[in-house]
Amino acid sequence: MTARLRKYDYRKGVQSKMKFIEGSVTASKGFTASGLHCGMRKNRAKKDLALIFASCRCDAAAIYTQNKVKGAPILVTREHIADGKAQAFLCNSGNANTCNADGVEKANAMCACVSKELGIPEEDIVIASTGVIGQPIYVEPVVSAAPALVKLLSKDGSGDAVDAIMTTDTHRKEAAAEFEINGRTCRVGGIAKGSGMINPNMATMLCFITTDADIASECLHKALKTAADETFNMVCVDGDTSTNDMAAVLASGLAGNDRITGEGGALDAFTSALTAVMRKLARGIARDGEGATKLIECVVSGAADKTSAKAVAKAVISSNLFKAAMFGSDANWGRVLCAVGYADANVDISKVDVAFESIAGRVDVCRGGMGVEFSENDASSVLMRSEIKVLVSLGGGAFGATAWGCDLTYDYVKINGDYRT
Amino acid sequence: MTARLRKYDYRKGVQSKMKFIEGSVTASKGFTASGLHCGMRKNRAKKDLALIFASCRCDAAAIYTQNKVKGAPILVTREHIADGKAQAFLCNSGNANTCNADGVEKANAMCACVSKELGIPEEDIVIASTGVIGQPIYVEPVVSAAPALVKLLSKDGSGDAVDAIMTTDTHRKEAAAEFEINGRTCRVGGIAKGSGMINPNMATMLCFITTDADIASECLHKALKTAADETFNMVCVDGDTSTNDMAAVLASGLAGNDRITGEGGALDAFTSALTAVMRKLARGIARDGEGATKLIECVVSGAADKTSAKAVAKAVISSNLFKAAMFGSDANWGRVLCAVGYADANVDISKVDVAFESIAGRVDVCRGGMGVEFSENDASSVLMRSEIKVLVSLGGGAFGATAWGCDLTYDYVKINGDYRT
Repeated sequence: MTARLRKYDYRKGVQSKMKFIEGSVTASKGFTASGLHCGMRKNRAKKDLALIFASCRCDAAAIYTQNKVKGAPILVTREHIADGKAQAFLCNSGNANTCNADGVEKANAMCACVSKELGIPEEDIVIASTGVIGQPIYVEPVVSAAPALVKLLSKDGSGDAVDAIMTTDTHRKEAAAEFEINGRTCRVGGIAKGSGMINPNMATMLCFITTDADIASECLHKALKTAADETFNMVCVDGDTSTNDMAAVLASGLAGNDRITGEGGALDAFTSALTAVMRKLARGIARDGEGATKLIECVVSGAADKTSAKAVAKAVISSNLFKAAMFGSDANWGRVLCAVGYADANVDISKVDVAFESIAGRVDVCRGGMGVEFSENDASSVLMRSEIKVLVSLGGGAFGATAWGCDLTYDYVKINGDYRT
Repeated sequence: MTARLRKYDYRKGVQSKMKFIEGSVTASKGFTASGLHCGMRKNRAKKDLALIFASCRCDAAAIYTQNKVKGAPILVTREHIADGKAQAFLCNSGNANTCNADGVEKANAMCACVSKELGIPEEDIVIASTGVIGQPIYVEPVVSAAPALVKLLSKDGSGDAVDAIMTTDTHRKEAAAEFEINGRTCRVGGIAKGSGMINPNMATMLCFITTDADIASECLHKALKTAADETFNMVCVDGDTSTNDMAAVLASGLAGNDRITGEGGALDAFTSALTAVMRKLARGIARDGEGATKLIECVVSGAADKTSAKAVAKAVISSNLFKAAMFGSDANWGRVLCAVGYADANVDISKVDVAFESIAGRVDVCRGGMGVEFSENDASSVLMRSEIKVLVSLGGGAFGATAWGCDLTYDYVKINGDYRT
């Protein structure tokens, strides 16, 4: 426990003026939200339809799953957002509307009935669905519920909205932050869902973000992509990249800042705040991974390049064997090294140090690719906690990355052995 | 349940004159084997040291893990086999001799004491180790046991040898076949171990093969590589590529066939027989995956190219969500399609058909990328069996591939939550 790994500053780049605030998607000026049970799910106690609405037409951007199988809502949203504008998020849980022959038609019908109630064009709705793949979807529940859904829209409705998009999630994922651009206070806030089928690639699980910053849709898209690469794309629950992943953002412009239309300090400040909000949501998703009892954070430092740093962090966090060891609070660092070794990364194994850390302390377990003596009792008490860091120093450069995952438990198997039936 | 997928002939290329026979590594002329408990493991009831010996110096070939972390025995074996010759396999279980500062020295010491007893140069020993990574290894048990190990060598010793290389394995993996080259009967036989940390890449778990065919080491290497690509490299238990994977083959030449020194029918016949033996061992490893209750075989047909066929088969078999669904006998074909969609493959999703098959029958669940109606009861009875085929037809070409895996169960988590401590 002598040599200390260099601490990777995961907040690097975040402007000091940024601070987290209460709330989520309705924290930004101009946004209201609602959520209710419409009947997409049998369980009447579970909300299954969410709406987030802006008081004005917004600049909009979205990123999507890289899976070749894409849910019908993604195809529809891609068209609706092609002009860089949108005004509402509509999302159901209980059915993914994926691999259905009439999926696009049904997604359009859902947009149509809600847009009519809102009094906006249906092309200004970003639609998303989550749930079982390949089950016929019925729009009648949405048609019936549309008036109530719109009537319920309020500043206090974000809790209902996040409840409505959850599937096997056990906790809400919400975050909001305040930051400054040209002396003007801006806000960014979001909600997310995701617990299983989590291995985002390029896009993410479902995540809806709002901001009142005034920012052009191309800049918004760039910021979203940058933030996702550092946050959602560094989360893995089970290695399965979903067919319905989507992260989307609406910018109302009501903060009154000078409109962001290109590179510069303002875009950097916005991207930093967006990244901070998305990081909080991403950690929430990892912590709430199906069956998870622990949040595992792998902090890689000393990498020769950014790609290697990310590949190593992601490999460690994704290893079933390592995840099972974490469930058992077993300091089986050989499995960490094994994952480092098979990661598609530029690594000199003879320079790799590994340590485990939690609020109970820190234990160094491997130095220069070889085991070091450590107390199993100390290691156990570090690993018994609900938030564990595995620190991997590659000793080969100045790049770092952080990835988030969870342990692999009996409950993951239980949840997924009979999810559908 | 009307349209039938074209059946992929997984025996394609296997010569009709080949047949499986009793036995394993000692089925080939000139080989004896032994296994005993030397003390590498605490449990005295578990054998932990194996020896397979040829009566003459053999042509030899081996392939190894692609993990950048490599066990010390792999480094030593690579040197020993550089001249294409070897005469014995030596393997311990209970300790992987990996990430130990003195690992190479210890592996050399193990070879030295056994070679002395055998009366052969220590450079003619292929050494392998399997067990926990990063634990100091002691050679004293091997030194003490070497005389007994050599004395026990016999034609009947292959069972003891395979028992000694097993770790979390619950069943022996053994296979042997007879085939003809130029009218001469030749034999090839092997043993393998592997249950967890199974996602071979290029190489494999531990597998020791013998043959009495007369074949030059370059040809032997080529045949081994070809066979591994179709067998061990198509197995996945948990996606973790081990640090100690090795498949090695010794050819005594005692069958008396014309020596194989290049391309042609004789090399093809040898490769086919080797592939058949290794396929049987590979299936055995998948079936005996840690905690597994079912062998899952994914048969892909209609692929545009071989690489795509393999990528799809491997992605399906590796999906944690699909594996958990198989444990629960849940015909959740959306997870199959999801894995097809994220496989790094050339696939047109709108042409994909999926069916489940076992001795209880067959159920078509997806056609043209969309769900078809099926009886959940029929599906359940198909999936309740211990051997399940998932048939994926890509409808885009003439290439196929088969991959083997197992279900994901509570016991996988249990075994790996406290493997080390």
